[in-house]
Amino acid sequence: MNIVPTWMRGYQKAWLSGDIVAGVIVTVMLIPQSLAYALLAGLPPEVGLYASILPIIAYALLGSSMTLAVGPVAVASLMTASALQPLAAAGTADYIALAMLLSLLSGGMLLLFGALRLGFLAHFLSHPVISGFISGSAILIAVGQVKHLLGVKAGGTDVLDTVAQLVRAVPHTNGVTLGIGAGSVVFLLLARKYLAAWLVRAGASAKLADIAAKLSPMLAVVVSTALVATLRWDQTAGVSIVGAVPQGLPTLALPEVSLSAIGQLWLPALLISLVGFVESVSVAQSLALKRQQRISPNRELLGLGAANVASAVSGGFPVTGGFARSVVNFSAGANTPLAGVISAVLMGAVIAALTGLFHYLPHAVLAATIIVAVVSLIDLDTLREAWHYDKADALSLLATAGGVIAFGVEAGILMGVGLSLGTLVWRSSHPHIAVVGRVPGTEHFRNVARHPVVTEPGLVAVRVDESLYFANSDVLQDTVESLVAAQPKVRYVLLVCSAINQVDTTALGVLTNMERSLSQRGVALLLAEVKGPVVDRLRSTPLGERLQGRVFLSTHQAFVFVHQNTALRPGGADGLIVSSS
Amino acid sequence: MNIVPTWMRGYQKAWLSGDIVAGVIVTVMLIPQSLAYALLAGLPPEVGLYASILPIIAYALLGSSMTLAVGPVAVASLMTASALQPLAAAGTADYIALAMLLSLLSGGMLLLFGALRLGFLAHFLSHPVISGFISGSAILIAVGQVKHLLGVKAGGTDVLDTVAQLVRAVPHTNGVTLGIGAGSVVFLLLARKYLAAWLVRAGASAKLADIAAKLSPMLAVVVSTALVATLRWDQTAGVSIVGAVPQGLPTLALPEVSLSAIGQLWLPALLISLVGFVESVSVAQSLALKRQQRISPNRELLGLGAANVASAVSGGFPVTGGFARSVVNFSAGANTPLAGVISAVLMGAVIAALTGLFHYLPHAVLAATIIVAVVSLIDLDTLREAWHYDKADALSLLATAGGVIAFGVEAGILMGVGLSLGTLVWRSSHPHIAVVGRVPGTEHFRNVARHPVVTEPGLVAVRVDESLYFANSDVLQDTVESLVAAQPKVRYVLLVCSAINQVDTTALGVLTNMERSLSQRGVALLLAEVKGPVVDRLRSTPLGERLQGRVFLSTHQAFVFVHQNTALRPGGADGLIVSSS
Repeated sequence: MNIVPTWMRGYQKAWLSGDIVAGVIVTVMLIPQSLAYALLAGLPPEVGLYASILPIIAYALLGSSMTLAVGPVAVASLMTASALQPLAAAGTADYIALAMLLSLLSGGMLLLFGALRLGFLAHFLSHPVISGFISGSAILIAVGQVKHLLGVKAGGTDVLDTVAQLVRAVPHTNGVTLGIGAGSVVFLLLARKYLAAWLVRAGASAKLADIAAKLSPMLAVVVSTALVATLRWDQTAGVSIVGAVPQGLPTLALPEVSLSAIGQLWLPALLISLVGFVESVSVAQSLALKRQQRISPNRELLGLGAANVASAVSGGFPVTGGFARSVVNFSAGANTPLAGVISAVLMGAVIAALTGLFHYLPHAVLAATIIVAVVSLIDLDTLREAWHYDKADALSLLATAGGVIAFGVEAGILMGVGLSLGTLVWRSSHPHIAVVGRVPGTEHFRNVARHPVVTEPGLVAVRVDESLYFANSDVLQDTVESLVAAQPKVRYVLLVCSAINQVDTTALGVLTNMERSLSQRGVALLLAEVKGPVVDRLRSTPLGERLQGRVFLSTHQAFVFVHQNTALRPGGADGLIVSSS
Repeated sequence: MNIVPTWMRGYQKAWLSGDIVAGVIVTVMLIPQSLAYALLAGLPPEVGLYASILPIIAYALLGSSMTLAVGPVAVASLMTASALQPLAAAGTADYIALAMLLSLLSGGMLLLFGALRLGFLAHFLSHPVISGFISGSAILIAVGQVKHLLGVKAGGTDVLDTVAQLVRAVPHTNGVTLGIGAGSVVFLLLARKYLAAWLVRAGASAKLADIAAKLSPMLAVVVSTALVATLRWDQTAGVSIVGAVPQGLPTLALPEVSLSAIGQLWLPALLISLVGFVESVSVAQSLALKRQQRISPNRELLGLGAANVASAVSGGFPVTGGFARSVVNFSAGANTPLAGVISAVLMGAVIAALTGLFHYLPHAVLAATIIVAVVSLIDLDTLREAWHYDKADALSLLATAGGVIAFGVEAGILMGVGLSLGTLVWRSSHPHIAVVGRVPGTEHFRNVARHPVVTEPGLVAVRVDESLYFANSDVLQDTVESLVAAQPKVRYVLLVCSAINQVDTTALGVLTNMERSLSQRGVALLLAEVKGPVVDRLRSTPLGERLQGRVFLSTHQAFVFVHQNTALRPGGADGLIVSSS
């Protein structure tokens, strides 16, 4: 196996200019984002920068998407804050160490899932649940950032409490801070809505205009930093600023690992991994399809896992693929993950030499970029569509969003997983089961409820249209028991197994009990059309031994057998073939 | 609706003697069990007695089984201890109040699930996972009781720690206590193995002998209590005894409810409900089938829910249907829940007047009954069968048992639920998808991999043999994308929807994206054999609008359409029907 990724081995010169342009543009976008998301996660700004170097390179080596831009993202940052705040005070050395450990756990889980090829884990969450989770988180994030816009202190235990504290804090609002913050929000919203169109009218290409509009946060950062630095608003007006950001590349070190910390962080780490993976794969997939490329969910697990481990050992926090950033990367012409590597190198240069530029950056402008970014994540379209198409899905969405807002991000996503899986189990518990009879004069057998068919006296023939396993085998037993109870003269129950690809241990137990219990009442269980692999495994079980001579190749043969036995012995044929139990 | 249960309205005189005998016998069995399981749950002995009165009556009014015996059971008691020990010191008033609250929450959840008809929730757990959970819990319980046999103090944080403490405590063993405890264990094991056979040889009927053998714990209790009371081993030898048990019926009162306590107890309550329900239903079902009766999972939820609420308001703790006790009830001839009501009345009489009899009851004999009871729960048969039949199921069993032993009962059952659901999601993520072609000269279409069929140039026809929903729609998209990528000349993708009963919101989104993405590459998506309800719901969606004129009644019609269009326009027919996106 060649460990050099395919894109690197087959790199073509023609790809280089696109990769360089995209790398530079993504860097300009990434700088304010990584500072802002570190703030959101309760971490010092440099941690956000650290999380934007090695993780990108690690993903470039193992991931399968050509255009996914990995780094700090809003929802994972919120989940980080929510996991760590009960354990340590935000911004302290302990808090940073726990953030690194969280990233290590999350990365380790993703690598493990990737190695075990568990990409299907993404299917634990339905789309409405994910959409509700993201929308709820966005609201939670936006509300939590308002204090930075006002320049006040307010940290409620839940949304209502936070809002109440904000309302009480309004009189203490710092006017200049509010000016910078609210000004930035208005600028960013206007820029998003009109800047691209305006640039196109001014003669720019649509693509260029679109990318330029996406970079408006950097403009807000530059202008506000320059203002504060020039007018010294941090001293004259009490504007809260980022302050000194340590210069220099991160040092590599394993985070402190303690069993008690792992005990507290494994669940948040699992949830961050799951949500990050699902979001990341869906972004990567939609971009890949536009260029007729493919991504591999299992390689995405490895790529994201490596990125998180890299983040953990270089002083960072949990990362994943970001939506807006990946779209910009794609539009700016990224052809391969080299674009990401270029971003990483540029970020490294910024950290090594230019952190002084962030000294006067006001917190309010970072809060403004966060708010504007997450407001666009509130997804009313999916709610509207689900409401029209499937009310149950719409209610799942609302319940998940409500759960996040009322009980926090972890309880919310757990509720969402529960709702998704509840639907899945419910659906699986309702297999399609048909009673079948013979289409007159043929060897075909069809549902008695839908076709004019002939049944055999003393026989109930049942066809299950699904494999038998723990979630549906009870239902089969219930159905058979009601059918037998309703027809006291029944002497044979035939199970038509044409659609059964598998019988798990639970279902085997149910079938064994059912056979025994039927036989105690003088009813014989017969099987027909059992697939080869199913027969092979049944053969060596006690049920298989008891069923000897009662497994038929075709439904027709089973019907003939019953017909002959019932005709021979009008009193019932149980003495002939039903063994005692 | 008549609120008097059916069994009461139609009560027949002939049933009475069986109910009375069973009621008396179960009471004799229930007294030592309820004292022992209260000890296991960390509660004073009277709480065990309280939990054996009203809950039984509540179940008799709402449950559907004629023979299930409800009350304290080993696994639920262990789960209670595990939930409460981090929150309060065992045996304190706070601890008792929390046990009542736990029972209230569990009862409330079961009633809610019953009202919502969520009996299918039992399908969240596969049989191997349940078996592993019970076996792991049994080992945990047995190890935890050894200290009472030795008469030493030892309370480790996990099994290994407990064993280490026990080993260190061996020199402090109380000889007399060990004599009573080990003697009881040996007696109970021998009684279980040989007593019934011996009684039969002595002339008793098999049924009577079997029941008498099951009552041997009461004999151990009587003899050991008499010994201790006579010789005053509590004072002369330091044997730990139950001591004064408050006399009098429990007072009815709602447990204290606090939001913070609910926050800590909801998950344990949910897990106790789930495990208790699954176990209870399986016992009730196997007994009902022996008499050709039926039980209703939804009514079992209501019955168990009412029992737990009744336990909560009468000073008790979580209860559920017990296996051994229900079997004795059944064998002793119980015909209706009246047997349970008689037990409850007798238990009430015991509490009102006879608790003085338990004063000299040694803890060691209770521990012995617990150990002997739970050792029989260790289920190696299921492990052996699963190992032969399905290694994956055997590994789930072992992982769950190992999880319980290593990480405790909550983590263990969560791992088990995770494993069960993981299997379910994995299975659901692998729908059967076949590429189909025409059986020559017919209007039948079959899997190209299995039949000699004819395909149409420029067309890929795909049949999905399952409803489309969040757990499998990605797989459909992946399959279609690979098929299209492998055949660049494809202009049509036909989805044969004969087996699709439902399309959820997630799958609708995937289909919408797939259609758009295919159409951008000049490939048109066609549908055939779409079922009525699916068509009705698709019609009002954006996808439905885009697909107008591309939904065919039969696969044959779709093939004819493609054939004609491709023949007319050799360069591909995309201009004709593929709308731009």
